Amino acid sequence: MLDQLQDILGSIKPVDNSLSNKIQTHLDDLTKPQGSLGRLEEIAMKYALVTGVNRPVLKKKKVFCFAADHGVATEGVSAFPAEVTPQMVYNMLNGGAAINVLARHAGADLEVIDIGVNHDFADHPSLRKYKVRHGSANMTQGPAMTTEETAQAIMAGVALAREARADGYDLVATGEMGIANTTPATALFAAMLDLPVKSITGRGTGIDDRMLDHKISVITQALEVNKKHLATPLETLAALGGFEIAGICGLVLGAASVGIPVVVDGFISSAGAVAAMKLSCKASDYLFFSHLSDEQGHKAIMNRLGARSILDLGLRLGEGTGAVLAMQVIEGAVKIYNEMATFSSANVSEKK
Amino acid sequence: MLDQLQDILGSIKPVDNSLSNKIQTHLDDLTKPQGSLGRLEEIAMKYALVTGVNRPVLKKKKVFCFAADHGVATEGVSAFPAEVTPQMVYNMLNGGAAINVLARHAGADLEVIDIGVNHDFADHPSLRKYKVRHGSANMTQGPAMTTEETAQAIMAGVALAREARADGYDLVATGEMGIANTTPATALFAAMLDLPVKSITGRGTGIDDRMLDHKISVITQALEVNKKHLATPLETLAALGGFEIAGICGLVLGAASVGIPVVVDGFISSAGAVAAMKLSCKASDYLFFSHLSDEQGHKAIMNRLGARSILDLGLRLGEGTGAVLAMQVIEGAVKIYNEMATFSSANVSEKK
Repeated sequence: MLDQLQDILGSIKPVDNSLSNKIQTHLDDLTKPQGSLGRLEEIAMKYALVTGVNRPVLKKKKVFCFAADHGVATEGVSAFPAEVTPQMVYNMLNGGAAINVLARHAGADLEVIDIGVNHDFADHPSLRKYKVRHGSANMTQGPAMTTEETAQAIMAGVALAREARADGYDLVATGEMGIANTTPATALFAAMLDLPVKSITGRGTGIDDRMLDHKISVITQALEVNKKHLATPLETLAALGGFEIAGICGLVLGAASVGIPVVVDGFISSAGAVAAMKLSCKASDYLFFSHLSDEQGHKAIMNRLGARSILDLGLRLGEGTGAVLAMQVIEGAVKIYNEMATFSSANVSEKK
Repeated sequence: MLDQLQDILGSIKPVDNSLSNKIQTHLDDLTKPQGSLGRLEEIAMKYALVTGVNRPVLKKKKVFCFAADHGVATEGVSAFPAEVTPQMVYNMLNGGAAINVLARHAGADLEVIDIGVNHDFADHPSLRKYKVRHGSANMTQGPAMTTEETAQAIMAGVALAREARADGYDLVATGEMGIANTTPATALFAAMLDLPVKSITGRGTGIDDRMLDHKISVITQALEVNKKHLATPLETLAALGGFEIAGICGLVLGAASVGIPVVVDGFISSAGAVAAMKLSCKASDYLFFSHLSDEQGHKAIMNRLGARSILDLGLRLGEGTGAVLAMQVIEGAVKIYNEMATFSSANVSEKK
């Protein structure tokens, strides 16, 4: 499994920036003042660079919602009980969760992946089974996952991305469900981006001041206990991560390896994306950060990455909700690129 | 015409806030942590309050793009020549402008209104003819429009809103096309919101430093020349506005009078919305400000209004482009409200 991961990392190429002048010339020839569509033009540029074609296509879209449980939930870091993870998976399979509603709205297909839920699901057409284990270990006692398990979860994400390419998807998005998962995500940001725990620890699904202090202690303890296991990105992800975060990391790497742009959801998904960027710095060429989460710390994390999100709607739900909303903006940008008239074709006078 | 306008202003009712507890209870019962969908929940609340029903409907959407010319264009305040106004109207009628692309993307119908273009158009199924005059007068020499003309342009917008209600539209949006129209819009903001001209004057379609200084002088001169004509909101709109801005003002007032929410596009549209709010303070209950324009000053204007836009994408094109993008977010919010499962229906455990 570790060998396969190395092969994937080796296969990721940076985007070909030689097309950028041609893309910019086309954007500037469209019937609008130059640059007046702001970030839509930046998005169209990035999308065209990733897809590497002159007229980028964006038709089929899919969001992957990775679900997993976390041993650290027993430390009392979440406002919701752990059984909500499988309950919400069922809710998604039944079409009633926020991600179902917003994925339908965006015209994106949704797949839910059991990558580490502490529950055995019956077969269901919308559920993919890539369970590595029935939840991670409690990271305050040692590594949450082994590196072998982590590589397995990453390769599940890679496999889904490669399958998406084979199925003709043009754009994929990340999402997740896992009670307590802001705790491992925060620990990962602290370790991978060297940010102070207190400044980036937030209230997740809605904990009070007392629980927030406790959550900060738990994360600090996990970082201390695992300090000998943070030498490489893979070890760090194993020690402080979770199966859904590793799956997201794999989806990003897999999509980059086959040239599909990836829309990263919020706080948790960003942790998976950061892990992917640590494993392969070229992965960032393929990423759209969809929204600025309302979770404390996401702004500092985005600043550290030099990344700017597309939306800022105060979301802190996860599941992929912000990602599919941003997919609509990206699709609008690509349509602008492909469908607008040019000054010459429309007989519109240019700037004086 | 002035009597009809008074009737419309008298018919606008504030929204019925008595439904808000019921709406909030429903939002809090959906399978997500309370408040975790952030601004989507605020938008759903506002939409439900405006539509005044328990299960709000959002199916049919329409954007109205008002086009007009401006006498002040002869002062050399725009980077583009005035003939671009009719040229862009033709581009819109042919489906090649940005608003065509993004309206199609959002599933919104588009209607272009000649409310004051200095050109005579042949009939076209997508063009509505409400021309008041072949462009406004040069506001540096006196009022841009008479109050009677202004009322006529407002009533055109009112008529379109009422027709939209009759045609079953659930949500309408504003847009505009008019070379030089950031100049009257800026003058209106300065007069109606008491903001310093220099701080809110921007580069429009892309003027250089020298032209920007000149534009500031032109606006300052217009405010000085018209200072005796700024006693009432209608007189102010007449003196410093333009036909498309008055039409947008009318669309807002008309929509509020028949209970349809209105999505306000960027800088120019905000001027029409502010005029509407000055004519009827209740109009604000019906408004969604779609995006923060990249045009200098829009942020200060939004702050002065206490309004927060839905998107911030660095757009400065107008036409309704930001408004139709925001329509997709609003539609997502309404679907969240209508389509998500509740904790009890989905058998999901609530917060501990």
